[in-house]
Amino acid sequence: MSQWIWKFGDFEIYHSLLLHNRRQQYGYPEPVVWKMYTPEPVVQFRKTVTTKGGSIRIRACGTFSVTVAKIGDKYRGENIRKYGGRSVIDLDPGTVEITIRTSNKESFPCIYVEGLVNSDETWTADDMSQDWAPVGTNSMFTEAEKTPEVFPFSYEKIYYKKREVLENGVLFDFGRETFAGTRFFGLSDRKVYIQFGESREEALDREWSVIHFDRQPVEGNISFEPYAFRYIFVSDRNAEVEAEYEYLPLTYRGSFCCSDEVLNRVWDTAAYTFHLNCREFFLDGIKRDRWVWAADAYQCLFVNRYLFLDRDLERRTLIALGGKTPFKVHINTIMDYSFFWIISLYEYYRTYGDRKFMEQIRPQMEYVMDFCRSRTDSDGFMREKPGDWIFIDWAPMDKTGAVCAEQILYAKAMECFGKILQLLEGDDKGYQRLAEDVQKAVFERFYDRQDHVFIDSYESGKNIVTRQTNILAYLFLPCTEEQKRDIYTHVILNEKVPQITTPYFKFYENQVHCMEGNTDILEQSIRTYYGSMLGTGATTLYEAYDPKQQGAEHYAMYGNPYEKSLCHAWSASPVYLLGNYRLGVQNTGIGYDTFTVCPDLGGITSFSGRVPVAGGSVSVSMDSREVRVMSTVPGGTLRVWGTEISLEPEREVILKNESGKKGRIEKI
Amino acid sequence: MSQWIWKFGDFEIYHSLLLHNRRQQYGYPEPVVWKMYTPEPVVQFRKTVTTKGGSIRIRACGTFSVTVAKIGDKYRGENIRKYGGRSVIDLDPGTVEITIRTSNKESFPCIYVEGLVNSDETWTADDMSQDWAPVGTNSMFTEAEKTPEVFPFSYEKIYYKKREVLENGVLFDFGRETFAGTRFFGLSDRKVYIQFGESREEALDREWSVIHFDRQPVEGNISFEPYAFRYIFVSDRNAEVEAEYEYLPLTYRGSFCCSDEVLNRVWDTAAYTFHLNCREFFLDGIKRDRWVWAADAYQCLFVNRYLFLDRDLERRTLIALGGKTPFKVHINTIMDYSFFWIISLYEYYRTYGDRKFMEQIRPQMEYVMDFCRSRTDSDGFMREKPGDWIFIDWAPMDKTGAVCAEQILYAKAMECFGKILQLLEGDDKGYQRLAEDVQKAVFERFYDRQDHVFIDSYESGKNIVTRQTNILAYLFLPCTEEQKRDIYTHVILNEKVPQITTPYFKFYENQVHCMEGNTDILEQSIRTYYGSMLGTGATTLYEAYDPKQQGAEHYAMYGNPYEKSLCHAWSASPVYLLGNYRLGVQNTGIGYDTFTVCPDLGGITSFSGRVPVAGGSVSVSMDSREVRVMSTVPGGTLRVWGTEISLEPEREVILKNESGKKGRIEKI
Repeated sequence: MSQWIWKFGDFEIYHSLLLHNRRQQYGYPEPVVWKMYTPEPVVQFRKTVTTKGGSIRIRACGTFSVTVAKIGDKYRGENIRKYGGRSVIDLDPGTVEITIRTSNKESFPCIYVEGLVNSDETWTADDMSQDWAPVGTNSMFTEAEKTPEVFPFSYEKIYYKKREVLENGVLFDFGRETFAGTRFFGLSDRKVYIQFGESREEALDREWSVIHFDRQPVEGNISFEPYAFRYIFVSDRNAEVEAEYEYLPLTYRGSFCCSDEVLNRVWDTAAYTFHLNCREFFLDGIKRDRWVWAADAYQCLFVNRYLFLDRDLERRTLIALGGKTPFKVHINTIMDYSFFWIISLYEYYRTYGDRKFMEQIRPQMEYVMDFCRSRTDSDGFMREKPGDWIFIDWAPMDKTGAVCAEQILYAKAMECFGKILQLLEGDDKGYQRLAEDVQKAVFERFYDRQDHVFIDSYESGKNIVTRQTNILAYLFLPCTEEQKRDIYTHVILNEKVPQITTPYFKFYENQVHCMEGNTDILEQSIRTYYGSMLGTGATTLYEAYDPKQQGAEHYAMYGNPYEKSLCHAWSASPVYLLGNYRLGVQNTGIGYDTFTVCPDLGGITSFSGRVPVAGGSVSVSMDSREVRVMSTVPGGTLRVWGTEISLEPEREVILKNESGKKGRIEKI
Repeated sequence: MSQWIWKFGDFEIYHSLLLHNRRQQYGYPEPVVWKMYTPEPVVQFRKTVTTKGGSIRIRACGTFSVTVAKIGDKYRGENIRKYGGRSVIDLDPGTVEITIRTSNKESFPCIYVEGLVNSDETWTADDMSQDWAPVGTNSMFTEAEKTPEVFPFSYEKIYYKKREVLENGVLFDFGRETFAGTRFFGLSDRKVYIQFGESREEALDREWSVIHFDRQPVEGNISFEPYAFRYIFVSDRNAEVEAEYEYLPLTYRGSFCCSDEVLNRVWDTAAYTFHLNCREFFLDGIKRDRWVWAADAYQCLFVNRYLFLDRDLERRTLIALGGKTPFKVHINTIMDYSFFWIISLYEYYRTYGDRKFMEQIRPQMEYVMDFCRSRTDSDGFMREKPGDWIFIDWAPMDKTGAVCAEQILYAKAMECFGKILQLLEGDDKGYQRLAEDVQKAVFERFYDRQDHVFIDSYESGKNIVTRQTNILAYLFLPCTEEQKRDIYTHVILNEKVPQITTPYFKFYENQVHCMEGNTDILEQSIRTYYGSMLGTGATTLYEAYDPKQQGAEHYAMYGNPYEKSLCHAWSASPVYLLGNYRLGVQNTGIGYDTFTVCPDLGGITSFSGRVPVAGGSVSVSMDSREVRVMSTVPGGTLRVWGTEISLEPEREVILKNESGKKGRIEKI
């Protein structure tokens, strides 16, 4: 089977460039605020083949020139034949090295070869610097006519639910948030205002709707590339619209259904919210910036694994985020995000066992790691340097000097990089040791031995304790069980410590709650936060939400009335949390070669659902009396009610709960 | 005055990418064979200004977003105002920092600001990595409507001299080699063959004309972007053509006229040949690859200084050649060419005294130098590594192990880099010493102490002596006068040492002849080589020429019948040699703050001419009895006939030759 092939990374770098160029804000395109990279403009592709002779057909995005060398010959020898840009070439029988040099400044160089020889992952590519490495491919591009220059989204006509004629125009309501290309027709010959809105209020606000346009119709028509909206206002009372939903055709491999309708609606809405944000890459939100942020993507990995388990989407995102060399500034300009990127790569490896990808991304990992180490102070800590953004969370924290949370993530990133080096080369190159040194220093400088909690900064002298720092310590530092318990009781359960206000950090806090087995906090949290959000009419989950707010107050953020994203990926965490801590399926090995199923009712009466695993899925249903589990693949172990059972593929386990005793196996 | 501004280098990198994509070969586009670089896709521009208030108008290639910060405020403070892509912005009185973030994946980000504040070289730019540096500008782009995306060539209608109807079509003869866009009209409705030719034979050869097309006319018309040709064949007897010469509007600041009509014709033809090759950058030739090669460009610097003294063309070429980081492969893949690039940069500085450009190009110089040093063996020599091409000349040489010529150039490059570091930082960072170490090692390992010549390689044991290696030693090693004399007599004047066959190396050999004052070899060489070439009907000077060949034999090269370039930049050296060694004007300082005029009749009876110098020119005429010199600028010293006279601006010196005595001043 032939595939389109390119220099590894170019496909993602190119589509990232297109994607980051699409932001619209208050009538203008808004360029991205961080460093972008470009594909290589000239690439050569090569493969050595032994054949009985025959012809090959070459297609390329860009121009190309072919040489065929009999193997064993020196370059510029007599047995090199040059074919220029000829697309059909006859090969003599024997062993030859085919080289196809391709130039493309518009998109990126890529080729498709079929016939006697096929282009596929066995080819190598070079950016004209003798830096040969395995090509990039993608299973989406196996057809000659379907080039990787165009991202292959799926399309579906959608229809508005309501058309409301107002004094100065018409308002379309599509019933729920969507992402669609639009064509307006039946317009008169004068300029119209078109305002997209996630809310009705936004669509009606000519000044502050984030995505709005003033346009002159052409023969009564105006078309737009896809944007996010539920409502659209057009300042022409005769306007009509047709819309086409643009989406990534993902398979819903995970599911969840329980006795609590609110949780079910949250799960469904989270899944839809997440799907809208799964496109070329994981986006943060689909209206406002539609950019790719490393820490948002890190959380998306977890959600993806309980919904789509789409490896390629993770891989694309990680390639796009990593950028290229020279690496001169943190990913998204944020120090923590460089660390999350490296941590994500190891998480990716754990999930998919994809060693080849680790080999391909390894040089870029090393550039990023080298960049971080080059900015490390003599005490081993990383402090803010010009151009750095120390983010951690949208919350007041003490960011003086060395910031505890950054060092925790820095150490974790080095630990992850060391593990990948160990995997690829059998040697962690000292990274585990470097990580331990930083971890030791964190305990020495930031751990309050009296209160048994971590402070944000030791350089300010303020000894401020935040949930954020302690949650990251809990999750990423090698704390003892006792230290974790201290953090949990002294910080997380301590109402005097300011609450987390972003769903972004709620994700981590809920993880900690679940890991501590504090069983119904998760459900409480989901009901009060997301359930209440749905109660206000949300059709997708918001970037942030404050139950105390009223009406259009919910839509304001960053100082502007509608800048809040009403469809934000990081709010999809219930899919992950319910899948991981209720259905209880957890990868414990590499690529699900081993996994556990630890179902837990938490604050729910009964549930059933499915969690994808490599090559299959695990179905789990549970109530207080019975658990049923079936995995389609080997490697699973069920652990519930004090019983541990090895799961055989395609054989359902039914376990009865006998109060006070271990679970009793009913049937395997 | 406003100028278009961009991130330093992007303009040249972009046009280099376009240029290197334009090669046509036997009916197909032919991608470039070396690594190409791309402009930054997102760049921010910044300037702090203090004004009384007023408005600015912003234009950009690409999308942009403007922020204005009151100085003293922190980022994200309240006194930062965001204007998105608004093109007219009102500034309050006071001091503000204007930042314009620009994204452009199609060409390169650049902006033009006018009104209260102008965009110019005082702005800085950053590729979103806080790597702020002075912007790139060019005096060609001072008008808002004339963006740097389009290279501003000049155009002029030209007409064929002869239209010859043949059996199968029509042949147009434009009388001399040119470079022009064409439109064919009056064509019938069937596919036609169109063949461009530098020679009549080439244009008539359907298979082997380097630039040919099969095209279907549209309404009787076909148009082509500019190509090089003298002849065009069209396979339609009714075909007509109109053509538009595309050229860089350069001022002919140098001139030369003498008593020998052959020399005059050579000079004129060399000047025209050179002009055709002066475009966005110095090209090697205008038909075949039209690429930018570092060693060809090095020679172009010399010719340019005696014809146009166009600083910008040199600067553009040097930026384009230098590429960007990561620098992973030699310039043009050729080791010697990386060295010539660095040597050229110091030559540039010597000529123009342009310290700012040295500061701007310095990071890239350092990347190239670091790359070379990273590939240096423990004995300090650079040997061929995978992907390297050890070129030196198209001639048999002993390239075993460490190649003498490469080490000579390597040392010279380090010496030049050291001088630039000394200039910019007052410290050569040890480069002079590094250069001396290599030079010392070259004398130790390659200098034959018996014959007083240099051998190509000491590792082969063959002790081969070539002109090439010894000429480079003469020109670039710190040889004593005696050692130079030895090289001259034992190698250059030694007919047993194989002759130079390329005009490329003839350039260096003639330099040596002239430096040795062996006075009429230059004229002999020009007459026999170029004069004979003109005798065969050449209208521009060829890439190579062998007087023993006949007819179309002259056009063959690289194994194909018409691959020789008939209009090749490196053949324009007579302009330099006659200007430097006959008119005798030589920059001896930095930017012509001092220069000498040492006119020398050589093998000529009388001559007169003009040589450009910074800010003016020097006119020189001479015969055996009298020299007349006038400089329009200060700094000159006339040295002739044993007399030395300081030249005052705008005052002609007339010096009489009195045989056996010093020259006598007639008039100043």
